[in-house]
Amino acid sequence: MRDVQSGPAQVALPIDRVGVKNLRLPLLVRDRVNGNQHTVADVDIGADLPAHFKGTHMSRFVEALDSWSEDLDYKSVQRLLNDVRARLEAERAFVTFRFPFFLAKQAPATGSPAIMSYDCRLTGEIGPEDNGRPRFLLQVDVPVMTVCPCSKAISDEGAHSQRALVRIQARFAGFTWLEELVDIADAAGSSPVYTLLKREDEKFVTESAFANPTFVEDVVRSVAQALAAHPQTTWFRVEVESFESIHNHSAFAVIEQRIERA
Amino acid sequence: MRDVQSGPAQVALPIDRVGVKNLRLPLLVRDRVNGNQHTVADVDIGADLPAHFKGTHMSRFVEALDSWSEDLDYKSVQRLLNDVRARLEAERAFVTFRFPFFLAKQAPATGSPAIMSYDCRLTGEIGPEDNGRPRFLLQVDVPVMTVCPCSKAISDEGAHSQRALVRIQARFAGFTWLEELVDIADAAGSSPVYTLLKREDEKFVTESAFANPTFVEDVVRSVAQALAAHPQTTWFRVEVESFESIHNHSAFAVIEQRIERA
Amino acid sequence: MRDVQSGPAQVALPIDRVGVKNLRLPLLVRDRVNGNQHTVADVDIGADLPAHFKGTHMSRFVEALDSWSEDLDYKSVQRLLNDVRARLEAERAFVTFRFPFFLAKQAPATGSPAIMSYDCRLTGEIGPEDNGRPRFLLQVDVPVMTVCPCSKAISDEGAHSQRALVRIQARFAGFTWLEELVDIADAAGSSPVYTLLKREDEKFVTESAFANPTFVEDVVRSVAQALAAHPQTTWFRVEVESFESIHNHSAFAVIEQRIERA
Amino acid sequence: MRDVQSGPAQVALPIDRVGVKNLRLPLLVRDRVNGNQHTVADVDIGADLPAHFKGTHMSRFVEALDSWSEDLDYKSVQRLLNDVRARLEAERAFVTFRFPFFLAKQAPATGSPAIMSYDCRLTGEIGPEDNGRPRFLLQVDVPVMTVCPCSKAISDEGAHSQRALVRIQARFAGFTWLEELVDIADAAGSSPVYTLLKREDEKFVTESAFANPTFVEDVVRSVAQALAAHPQTTWFRVEVESFESIHNHSAFAVIEQRIERA
Repeated sequence: MRDVQSGPAQVALPIDRVGVKNLRLPLLVRDRVNGNQHTVADVDIGADLPAHFKGTHMSRFVEALDSWSEDLDYKSVQRLLNDVRARLEAERAFVTFRFPFFLAKQAPATGSPAIMSYDCRLTGEIGPEDNGRPRFLLQVDVPVMTVCPCSKAISDEGAHSQRALVRIQARFAGFTWLEELVDIADAAGSSPVYTLLKREDEKFVTESAFANPTFVEDVVRSVAQALAAHPQTTWFRVEVESFESIHNHSAFAVIEQRIERA
Repeated sequence: MRDVQSGPAQVALPIDRVGVKNLRLPLLVRDRVNGNQHTVADVDIGADLPAHFKGTHMSRFVEALDSWSEDLDYKSVQRLLNDVRARLEAERAFVTFRFPFFLAKQAPATGSPAIMSYDCRLTGEIGPEDNGRPRFLLQVDVPVMTVCPCSKAISDEGAHSQRALVRIQARFAGFTWLEELVDIADAAGSSPVYTLLKREDEKFVTESAFANPTFVEDVVRSVAQALAAHPQTTWFRVEVESFESIHNHSAFAVIEQRIERA
Repeated sequence: MRDVQSGPAQVALPIDRVGVKNLRLPLLVRDRVNGNQHTVADVDIGADLPAHFKGTHMSRFVEALDSWSEDLDYKSVQRLLNDVRARLEAERAFVTFRFPFFLAKQAPATGSPAIMSYDCRLTGEIGPEDNGRPRFLLQVDVPVMTVCPCSKAISDEGAHSQRALVRIQARFAGFTWLEELVDIADAAGSSPVYTLLKREDEKFVTESAFANPTFVEDVVRSVAQALAAHPQTTWFRVEVESFESIHNHSAFAVIEQRIERA
Repeated sequence: MRDVQSGPAQVALPIDRVGVKNLRLPLLVRDRVNGNQHTVADVDIGADLPAHFKGTHMSRFVEALDSWSEDLDYKSVQRLLNDVRARLEAERAFVTFRFPFFLAKQAPATGSPAIMSYDCRLTGEIGPEDNGRPRFLLQVDVPVMTVCPCSKAISDEGAHSQRALVRIQARFAGFTWLEELVDIADAAGSSPVYTLLKREDEKFVTESAFANPTFVEDVVRSVAQALAAHPQTTWFRVEVESFESIHNHSAFAVIEQRIERA
């Protein structure tokens, strides 16, 4: 049967990335308390393509994922990327997993536990310059609460508050738990948010958030400061988006930083 | 050239609705202040199909929309629906327009004007039982602010607030402005939301919202009461969804009601 | 501490549904081959509220879900709904789970297996008229391939094809596997779609789809016929949406039917 | 009234970007045939913030947009960006407009005209190094049709086809029409897509697409070649995503390139 893909390209340009997108799979993810947890992922996976090949063999990406079928950690992603390079005869490979990550979180006054979920993304990439050690990029979205400092200062009573989303993207020199990034974001808003709050907890959250008003500018700076102080970070980008309760639009702030490590 | 669509169906079942979806068009919509306004719409349009025809001529829906090309009002939608019935030799026709609607709104203290936008939807339907007079369903999404009455009552200071969305769907016996529905929703939350608020306005909104705390239950009941009192309503459904600032999930409430008019 | 929710409502209207939305949870779902499977769900859960209560105790819905924490089947949802009614002192309760469902599917020529995922939704409702036996509504989205019969008939060579989505919603008199609904949809298009196709499989799919061209009207009628013939169906609604490859809009068709069972 | 924003920051870090997001506005956009057209836009707008200020005055972004209120072209965006820098006392400013763009397109055989819409994005940025001349980034999404060359070569009859999306992002040394980018993408797939096709047109599209099969790799290379040959391009990134009709996932390919101009 003809192998059209291996024929010559009409336009002889190298392609940076070619692959498949939005494949959904069950996934096991490592977790600090239970060892690992079941979740589901949307996966993008690809490789580069030299100028002289007409096409990639797309089914090989699916075969690589299928024969991988293991839990998500740095070692297993390294194996997957090397497998993709071998199957596709490619110099570069990458993979991105987007998945919800679950954490039990205790209410601040009663201690009642309930499950929170966080949208996460892990990207691994490898090329000839990486000496077999892939580069990783971790992303986590953490909802927090913000109370507006301006509204509090100028009003006789009250202050508007809202849900805000802290998106952390970071590269690390060594292993880092997703949970550490959630903790950093949780500490930066006016208050963390919770799945289950009894009346005592709601009182606690309201009062402590009111005592600690934050602009998106304050939140993005606190997260940036904590990430810069983290022993493993080599690069990060933080974006905070606040779904303003007095407007129908968002306020946002972004800090991106590279950190040189000796 | 063969007309496959007019051939016999393999499975001789009548089809309730067949047509095209997600056609995007520029649109003129009537507006109380300026007469009309330019916006854009996503359109679904369709008809019924008797059991004995294999298929519909989908291009005729596009032709009907194309030759319509006028501003959106009750008369013009009536013409469009009758045109669809004629072109498709159908008993029933329907069309749905989804579009943003713009309103200039003044800040509550300084009076500074700025544009708000509201997601709207108009559906028109006609069948043999309608005697040539289509039935209409109007939908509008109005963001408002809610301050939590429980949080305010139990906390020493402050109260959590958030953006909430009021979705009104309604049928009317006679012409009704979209603006009337926006006004009804705006009056039901702890405060309306605005695009532009100067410091004096932010103080005003914060204090008046704090003085008027509302659960989603309060908001949905106020809107329901106002819609039931509106002289033209024959049916409505209201859903209020509050994007809780202390949780990562929403609270919601729904009331649906038919109103008999003599 | 004050219980504001139990106080009197300002507007004494009963509320049809009040509750929480978009809570994300890990979930176990029953599956025909493996017994059960791990997935994740977005959950909406609620109850009715009489005219005289100001508000619902939203945290009780979260507690009900939390203490439920079991696998999704008819018995467990029944327990959950009754628990919600008891905790909230409500007459009616409902819950909706939206989740991806995974099935291993073999390629049609080589038999190579790979995982497909299907968006599903299960809604359970109970009220005083149900004698303790909840009503269920099952929804599944099945992607299929359609080859256009008109394009094939009028063209010297080829025919345009595209991905289409079959959305089945149905109520049943007794237990029905999600897998049965996937099979019904898969049999109705020009061809099923697959996650992994080797060259021999791609040849098979192309040729068998080309030999079996289908309009959205054909697909919706085939699915309707199969659902009406299913021994357990009491009601269904099928919508097929075809993401036309020659247009930037979709074609769609809908059939809804109630089936009387003696 | 206190100006909290002008107070000192607790964490003295400069912020790269701070502003508002997802403001929706009516907009006039330039168009080659009619001079301009009405559409609607979602706008993000922001500036940098030095380390010593606690917060930005968010309402000033809204005022800048409000007093701008003109049609979108390079000059007007330059004025807007300079106005933002002045109002916010900022060194850097940026703005992004996301909007649908409408083009009348004639069917290939009958010449019947109908409106197509394209999702577009224009970003303008200015900083101290730009000497008052902002940098622009233009993005346009163009749906096309792809017929699979492998499926055609190995099958006795037929070949699977599907809708694909060509996303062009580009920077230019001088004025370039959005229409030029649409033309480049339209020429690169197996066939353009159309809003209105009569039977003769459908025959034409089917046969010409079948005679011109393309992988995503072919499409991305053709677009890249055309953009590199365009007299004004200084940088581009092209991504083609094909919504495979035989799978439930996409195939994709990306080329990014900088072009040095003397």
